[in-house]
Amino acid sequence: MLGVGLIGGSIGLAARRHADDAEVTGFGRSPDRLETARGLGAIDRAAGSLEEAVDGAQAVFCCAPVSALPGQIEAALAAAPPDCVVTDVGSVKGGVTERFADERFVGGHPIAGAETAGVEHARADLFAGAVWYLTPSESSSGILYERLHRLVVALGARPVAIEAVSHDRLLAAVSHLPHVVANVLVSRAAGRGELPRVGPSFRDATRVAGANSAIWTDIYVANGQAIADEVEAVAEALHRAARVLRSGEPEAIRAFACGSEISSVLPTT
Amino acid sequence: MLGVGLIGGSIGLAARRHADDAEVTGFGRSPDRLETARGLGAIDRAAGSLEEAVDGAQAVFCCAPVSALPGQIEAALAAAPPDCVVTDVGSVKGGVTERFADERFVGGHPIAGAETAGVEHARADLFAGAVWYLTPSESSSGILYERLHRLVVALGARPVAIEAVSHDRLLAAVSHLPHVVANVLVSRAAGRGELPRVGPSFRDATRVAGANSAIWTDIYVANGQAIADEVEAVAEALHRAARVLRSGEPEAIRAFACGSEISSVLPTT
Repeated sequence: MLGVGLIGGSIGLAARRHADDAEVTGFGRSPDRLETARGLGAIDRAAGSLEEAVDGAQAVFCCAPVSALPGQIEAALAAAPPDCVVTDVGSVKGGVTERFADERFVGGHPIAGAETAGVEHARADLFAGAVWYLTPSESSSGILYERLHRLVVALGARPVAIEAVSHDRLLAAVSHLPHVVANVLVSRAAGRGELPRVGPSFRDATRVAGANSAIWTDIYVANGQAIADEVEAVAEALHRAARVLRSGEPEAIRAFACGSEISSVLPTT
Repeated sequence: MLGVGLIGGSIGLAARRHADDAEVTGFGRSPDRLETARGLGAIDRAAGSLEEAVDGAQAVFCCAPVSALPGQIEAALAAAPPDCVVTDVGSVKGGVTERFADERFVGGHPIAGAETAGVEHARADLFAGAVWYLTPSESSSGILYERLHRLVVALGARPVAIEAVSHDRLLAAVSHLPHVVANVLVSRAAGRGELPRVGPSFRDATRVAGANSAIWTDIYVANGQAIADEVEAVAEALHRAARVLRSGEPEAIRAFACGSEISSVLPTT
């Protein structure tokens, strides 16, 4: 386990609880936080170096922020045994999958939405029933992919294999796009000093805007083109919606308000 | 109480529980539902006609859907005693406030977000701590406004006086706009068959899209111009966000990801 925060810590807790004979070694930048992780039962022992942590490992989970993942994965592949699967948990998969054409590397991305960070918030059931995307490349070993797949199942998640590029487009649409939209909505409201009186619709629509901005900077940089495609398509759809609203035509507006009929009013591409 | 559904029923429950000596008479299109409302304690008695319901009343709450409110308010004002305050609970206030320049009329709008409808879901605490906008016109009687203000406080809500036009612009920004955006996001995702795998960000951002489409058609028709203004401004802000994302400039992207700095990157007007 490289990086023992919310995600790494939850993987450790789940592995130690659910995977038979799992022994989890953790490594991270802060010895204090590693000790906390050990105290919480997220790891069996703390390693003094990355090399020590991956020595003899069957699987290595790289749990750094997206911008630090390439360096961490590179170091893990350099140190890991030949029959060890190396994976990561980053929200953007195209870059690392393309870069690490190593039979031991299989990209991964658990969909565990949490606004908290830190191993203190780690939970053994964080991945229970959650989709966990796996993005093997053409270089990935089938045997090591299978091992990772079984591990993900043992953690309680549902592994879903997907091409890295498709993953990034999908996440741009369903996760990254809503964050951009929420940021824009919050920005507009904040600029007018109207936040204190807002109702539940606005709170729900913008809850995600409060998420860690360093994490989101990384994601926006790593997946910027795919997200920009989505954002522009939504902007165009909003222009079309505004035209419907301005028309004052009850039938057209009713069609827009009905989810079932929306696509005929607002063709999405 | 004209219209005893979720809102009217909750006003009745709260009034009977919290307002001293309140006696609530209800009238609605369906005798069956009126009887249900009486059984649930939302009203003391069911009236056989609107005229009977408002006879001798100190306050009349018009709780019809937005498109039916003008007719209901007109009938209430025609039948209500001279010293009775008539109010409504519609989400759009400009039209009715302009139309009913009667000293007895004071527009109102409780911010009680609920996706359910019907008196079965009415709760005495639906308005506890919630903002309740009041939109008196120049014609409104100060004495009757004060009576309504005290009633709203007795229901557990926080009355906030605001001009009808400002109310409609504010609600367009913080409530109606998120619904339009959620509709557009859901429409796009549905068109691509990707809904089953979406994560919590998307669910939160689009929860409101499932709301009653008849109610929203009314709101979109009644407040279409103000909503269209907001929707277009957000579309422009999204185009600017897309340019920032495409630039790949980490500093500009970081500024966008940080709520505090967002307005300098994305001027909102």
